[in-house]
Amino acid sequence: MLEKIDLSKKADKETCRQVMEQEGERLARLQRECKAAGIPVMIVFEGMGAAGKGVQINRLIQALDPRGFSVYASNSSSEEERMRPFLWRFWIKTPANGRIAIFDRSWYRSVQADRFDGITKEEDLAGAYQDILSFEKQLTDGGTVIIKLFLYISKEEQKKRFQKLDDSKETSWRVTKQDWKRNKEYDTYLKINEEMLENTDTDAAPWTIIEATDKDYAAMKIRSTVAQRLAYELERRKAAAQKDGGAPEVRPDNRFKNGVLSGVDLSKTLTREEYKNELSHLQKKLEKLHSELYRLRIPVVLCFEGWDAGGKGGAIKRLTSHLDPRGYQVNPTASPNDIERVHHYLWRFWNNMPKAGHIAIFDRTWYGRVMVERIEGFCTEAEWKRAYQEINEMEAHMANFGTVILKFWMHIDKDEQERRFHERMENPAKQWKITDEDWRNREKWDQYETAVDEMLVRTSTTYAPWIVVEGNSKYYARVKVLRCVVEALEEKIKKAESAT
Amino acid sequence: MLEKIDLSKKADKETCRQVMEQEGERLARLQRECKAAGIPVMIVFEGMGAAGKGVQINRLIQALDPRGFSVYASNSSSEEERMRPFLWRFWIKTPANGRIAIFDRSWYRSVQADRFDGITKEEDLAGAYQDILSFEKQLTDGGTVIIKLFLYISKEEQKKRFQKLDDSKETSWRVTKQDWKRNKEYDTYLKINEEMLENTDTDAAPWTIIEATDKDYAAMKIRSTVAQRLAYELERRKAAAQKDGGAPEVRPDNRFKNGVLSGVDLSKTLTREEYKNELSHLQKKLEKLHSELYRLRIPVVLCFEGWDAGGKGGAIKRLTSHLDPRGYQVNPTASPNDIERVHHYLWRFWNNMPKAGHIAIFDRTWYGRVMVERIEGFCTEAEWKRAYQEINEMEAHMANFGTVILKFWMHIDKDEQERRFHERMENPAKQWKITDEDWRNREKWDQYETAVDEMLVRTSTTYAPWIVVEGNSKYYARVKVLRCVVEALEEKIKKAESAT
Repeated sequence: MLEKIDLSKKADKETCRQVMEQEGERLARLQRECKAAGIPVMIVFEGMGAAGKGVQINRLIQALDPRGFSVYASNSSSEEERMRPFLWRFWIKTPANGRIAIFDRSWYRSVQADRFDGITKEEDLAGAYQDILSFEKQLTDGGTVIIKLFLYISKEEQKKRFQKLDDSKETSWRVTKQDWKRNKEYDTYLKINEEMLENTDTDAAPWTIIEATDKDYAAMKIRSTVAQRLAYELERRKAAAQKDGGAPEVRPDNRFKNGVLSGVDLSKTLTREEYKNELSHLQKKLEKLHSELYRLRIPVVLCFEGWDAGGKGGAIKRLTSHLDPRGYQVNPTASPNDIERVHHYLWRFWNNMPKAGHIAIFDRTWYGRVMVERIEGFCTEAEWKRAYQEINEMEAHMANFGTVILKFWMHIDKDEQERRFHERMENPAKQWKITDEDWRNREKWDQYETAVDEMLVRTSTTYAPWIVVEGNSKYYARVKVLRCVVEALEEKIKKAESAT
Repeated sequence: MLEKIDLSKKADKETCRQVMEQEGERLARLQRECKAAGIPVMIVFEGMGAAGKGVQINRLIQALDPRGFSVYASNSSSEEERMRPFLWRFWIKTPANGRIAIFDRSWYRSVQADRFDGITKEEDLAGAYQDILSFEKQLTDGGTVIIKLFLYISKEEQKKRFQKLDDSKETSWRVTKQDWKRNKEYDTYLKINEEMLENTDTDAAPWTIIEATDKDYAAMKIRSTVAQRLAYELERRKAAAQKDGGAPEVRPDNRFKNGVLSGVDLSKTLTREEYKNELSHLQKKLEKLHSELYRLRIPVVLCFEGWDAGGKGGAIKRLTSHLDPRGYQVNPTASPNDIERVHHYLWRFWNNMPKAGHIAIFDRTWYGRVMVERIEGFCTEAEWKRAYQEINEMEAHMANFGTVILKFWMHIDKDEQERRFHERMENPAKQWKITDEDWRNREKWDQYETAVDEMLVRTSTTYAPWIVVEGNSKYYARVKVLRCVVEALEEKIKKAESAT
């Protein structure tokens, strides 16, 4: 999930000055409004070491009336705290109505740093998550706004910052052995953090990832995120009080979208020669793996989503051409039929989940809920917002059963799509593939891009990752899909064999 | 929790005939209305072996239009089912809008029979519960009504029924070795079931306990429960559609209340001699245990609730009179003050939770939420209904930390209360104890009884049990409280010492 985030974002001084001033004024006003409305607010800063939590808290509070907030640093626990249940120290710090409590590290320690350090044992992890989820649910149900920020930097950036701190006498005490250990084992620590984000990203208390390489950019995004959320919550309460139904739409601030797709390098390509060689090599491998899957009773789910004309069909064709047809099934997903329409939206997909040892390929999937259904208003905002968690739960259930799940986003740019649309219109053999609706969808490209970016970040999990396929070159795309499938299956088979 | 249920309830033939007919007609009408409104309904039958699930399903469906429902028996899993993730078999059976699906045993097998049989391992239990909760939440969020019935009979009754089946050639095959094992280890199996009920009794999909000793009584209660729930859900949706806010009140059917309090034997008493001896003996024991607690760093929470003039104060006095005052604190709970009022309702109690090694005694507690606040309308219906789970979560968190939690309901009958009120009014030394409000509360005795019955059943957990104290005799009550505390502490200390 986090590897999808583009960490190179920067802000120039002038933009930063303007945004900070403008959002600062908004924030000050919103703080007064929250106070008047009696809304308690909790802002949580978590993130990688040296990502700048202290600096950013400081920059955030510049905009706030100091009589209205408290900052709590949750370092290692005090004697007083250790003598009471874990959540006690946070419960007693929950803010009164109208006040803001800011936490520099928080109740997430138990599933993050403490887990990495072996203080939280793996068998206690499920309970620790349950405690966190209950705690946040009780507070948000009771009217508290919880804003959770995760400050993210890369391994290299972290190393550089630790080094800099270490090199100076005044600051070297701030870098501990544990810090260096976390940098050295960055990937392990990152995975722990990703799991944390996946497990606790709820609709009532969602996480926002802050790209923290550039401090100005991070400060802007934090100020804007907090302001936006407070504005939303105030509006939501007003709407609820007037009973005119429904929460207000959250309009994401486009300046600060996570922008997964915009960072994709679409220039990748293969020659016809390379393509033919690789394709044939991978297809033969896959054929063998397929019978291994059957023997080991491993179920496989392969999901294909992407832009219209993004190359889903072509990739699926290359994937299946050497497979035993008794061992896989391709499930095309159209608009729901009459029977499907009167069931839960996930029901029809559950019906097509593969048996152990079989492969199910979905040409379009349950992700329609958070793309077309969201954009076209086929479901309510509450419904598609809830869907991220529902989908993650469904995929987790399958993964726990031993299912391999891979999800491909076939990505092309707008120009390439136009070229392909025209090609389809001009080629009589392909005309069936293009409809007026395709052109209409194309007009909503930006809306889709926002929805897809959000989908990729919120549903790319350790157990069911999204793979963005650079699709301008069909050759490159098809080979990448095949290679990813082959690698994932090889890994799973190796694990399954070593387990028996 | 279940031990609080009065299993002796019976119905006479004539009442049964009338109720079944009347509720049957209502149910048939409600089925048509649910169909018209497109509401999918799932009815789950779980319970102890030989509690009569089959018979009761049969009696329930007599009232229904057979074109509108399906019955699924979930015996051991089929080959097809084992090859897919556990929830698959239930997802594909979720009913279409307007249809009813009835489950004879269900997805609860994994945390119930399969757990008892060792098929579900203890380390997988948390995941199994998570799956169940997600499954039900996804469905109820999507509009499905889930009605869960737990058919309950005693060990003796079960044995009698197994024996009867076993004695006849035609039916002996129905009693398996596993059945007899579950009867023999009834208490273990009961505890597993209690945990299941505790963990999955959610606001959106609550459990109803069916006292199943008398089959007619059970049939009536089932029919009435289903009808009442459907009526409620239809009304709720209508209200939501008209946006006139709030769910309708659920009016419990008084014929079928669980009636914990009504079954309490208030004639228990002690002579002055017995009282003095026992009291002095137990107080000395408690004194010693108190220093053991301190040495072993065990925190203790003792909660006192009960009718006005039920004897809370007297019991607390006898409990603390021989304790070292540095090691305990009595927290009286009045209406929340200005500071408390602007925090989450649990905040003030969290603040008073004891340190490791200390005892906190609460004279009235967080249970005010589901009693006085519920009855006087100081909180919304959604709020007090949510509170059962919130309270259970809080107590579970403390219990996991190693806290001993006991909750006493000081019970007297209405006549005894009146006698005590008059005594207080006539005795100048006690006049301060009685106010007009006490008399007003007394007028709401029946409302309180309903609320207390529900509270006792929904929040008496394995880790924080309710103890109903027969309080008409003050001597008996005080000794019982002391004895329960002494026994619980002895047990905990024994466990703690064997762990070190």
